[in-house]
Amino acid sequence: MPELRKDPVVGRWVIISTERSRRPTNFSPEAPASAGSFSPFAEGREDMTPPEVYVVRSAPGTANGPGWSVRVVPNKFPALQVEGSLDRRGEGLYDKMNGIGAHEVVIESADPGLQFADLPVEQIQQVLVAYRERMLDLKKDKRLRYVLVFKNHGAGAGATLEHTHSQIIATPIIPRMVQEELDGARRYFELKERSVFADILDQEMAEGNGRRIVSSTDRFVAIAPFAPRFPFETWILPRAHRSSYHTIDDPEEFLEFARILKDTLQRLNVALDTPPYNFVLHTAPLGEDDLPYYHWHLEIMPKLTRVAGFEIGSGFYINPTPPEDAAQYLREIVVLT
Amino acid sequence: MPELRKDPVVGRWVIISTERSRRPTNFSPEAPASAGSFSPFAEGREDMTPPEVYVVRSAPGTANGPGWSVRVVPNKFPALQVEGSLDRRGEGLYDKMNGIGAHEVVIESADPGLQFADLPVEQIQQVLVAYRERMLDLKKDKRLRYVLVFKNHGAGAGATLEHTHSQIIATPIIPRMVQEELDGARRYFELKERSVFADILDQEMAEGNGRRIVSSTDRFVAIAPFAPRFPFETWILPRAHRSSYHTIDDPEEFLEFARILKDTLQRLNVALDTPPYNFVLHTAPLGEDDLPYYHWHLEIMPKLTRVAGFEIGSGFYINPTPPEDAAQYLREIVVLT
Repeated sequence: MPELRKDPVVGRWVIISTERSRRPTNFSPEAPASAGSFSPFAEGREDMTPPEVYVVRSAPGTANGPGWSVRVVPNKFPALQVEGSLDRRGEGLYDKMNGIGAHEVVIESADPGLQFADLPVEQIQQVLVAYRERMLDLKKDKRLRYVLVFKNHGAGAGATLEHTHSQIIATPIIPRMVQEELDGARRYFELKERSVFADILDQEMAEGNGRRIVSSTDRFVAIAPFAPRFPFETWILPRAHRSSYHTIDDPEEFLEFARILKDTLQRLNVALDTPPYNFVLHTAPLGEDDLPYYHWHLEIMPKLTRVAGFEIGSGFYINPTPPEDAAQYLREIVVLT
Repeated sequence: MPELRKDPVVGRWVIISTERSRRPTNFSPEAPASAGSFSPFAEGREDMTPPEVYVVRSAPGTANGPGWSVRVVPNKFPALQVEGSLDRRGEGLYDKMNGIGAHEVVIESADPGLQFADLPVEQIQQVLVAYRERMLDLKKDKRLRYVLVFKNHGAGAGATLEHTHSQIIATPIIPRMVQEELDGARRYFELKERSVFADILDQEMAEGNGRRIVSSTDRFVAIAPFAPRFPFETWILPRAHRSSYHTIDDPEEFLEFARILKDTLQRLNVALDTPPYNFVLHTAPLGEDDLPYYHWHLEIMPKLTRVAGFEIGSGFYINPTPPEDAAQYLREIVVLT
């Protein structure tokens, strides 16, 4: 049984994934999966994954059979497990609980050879809807407090399989960074009676400004944030106030999000020669569906520089690329669609 | 002039290092310096670095000439600069200041071919004293609030030069992770009227326990922390209460710290086949020399797994190695000295 343990000083929860325990000799770097290598996620190999929990099919078909375009399955090597009770308990001054939660894989295409940024916009839309559907389903489990959706693209960004996929980890705790955003945004709201995200959007979009805007649509804005940790870090924010991603219900909104996401990833691909990247969806905790001070958004982080342990150990980042420069490069790229 | 910018939501300061600005094409991975490659830090090449700000010589010699064993010089490509005023200012809702601070390199040996863990204990002691001396000197600059000492060992851990060295970054802000430790430790103290670090040490050292102890001496303990982010993460803590590293003044204490640090690194080298690693010294902010609730310590993080952006983006870590297992492996290693 994996365990969730809390650091007694800073209060950070970590998963001690005992099921995956590795002896020292097992840490040799994994060979990154190369192009054309065998994919257990490909169409026709549905029996290589646990049974699907969500699927998009163009025509009715057999569950766990071919004919799908997006498929969500439990992770075969999950960091958390669904069965059991939380059993929060102490160990002297320490706090821990059972590693209860869900760990799923969103297979974003039936074709192992395609990159996420190259998928048709409608396919990306299906993936973005799949995130919402899984959130709505996982929300029913009252033990869970947060659904973390993220993507590791490329071996350099931590992907171990090349077949395009993202991951969902649903946890009984709120991830630290999200909690910090919530706390910071709430403090700002108490002081100003305005959402900090709305103020950021206002300032960034103001006439004569726009130096950090990468692109914008009716409903979304892609920006280089004012204080990015990483070169070419890019956030996609909805213009309208909405704290929880899973409350989106207009298919057009998902399509527009898919369009600006694909456009942004393509700009990054051209500017940076198809870099490895991660994206993390930030949304309000489950059961807190309408927070006036919070705004869901997506953070995209190309992996261009090595993140040294000092940066993780200190929380202090050095970024050699001013966001105004990054936004300008990305803005000037002509994306052929 | 580099800038310090604050994220308006979470309050995280980052350095936008404009002097080092890189165009997109400059992000191709740097070739890691190979063994025997040219070292600008070697003895006899003192003119390749800025003039030394601290040096240890066995015999009187010429400043910036050969004959030294430890040498501290300003970083030739500093992330922050010493000259100028902070000039704290707003930009709409955003906060920023000039990137004032110091960025120094501690050259830990005159010999480019030696690893830190292989240096004689007395040499490591000199390095640890050098940290203190630089802190005391930088403390005189009232603009500075924190001195961050860290080491990147090996290309995988972000080192760009193989010649053994550590770095010192003195900043006008308190790094986020340190601030979180200070806040957490203060809250614990308010609740318990005891230091959380003292309680951790008591519990870890208690009879019948010791499952997370790697080694201990009269004054220091090396432990696998209860909730480590990384496999084989190891902390060295002084047993006696002391919040600021720079208030150590007993040479014997530095020698004992050097001994347990060398011993711990050697155990990690044997267990994990000389892994890349980082260490970060955690100490109280400048001008807060005696905090009853804080304890300086050193955090060592071997770089065994790829840290994915998701972990940085969420602050949520999955660790496949329980610290009890890691401590046991490390404890059972026989270090030949």
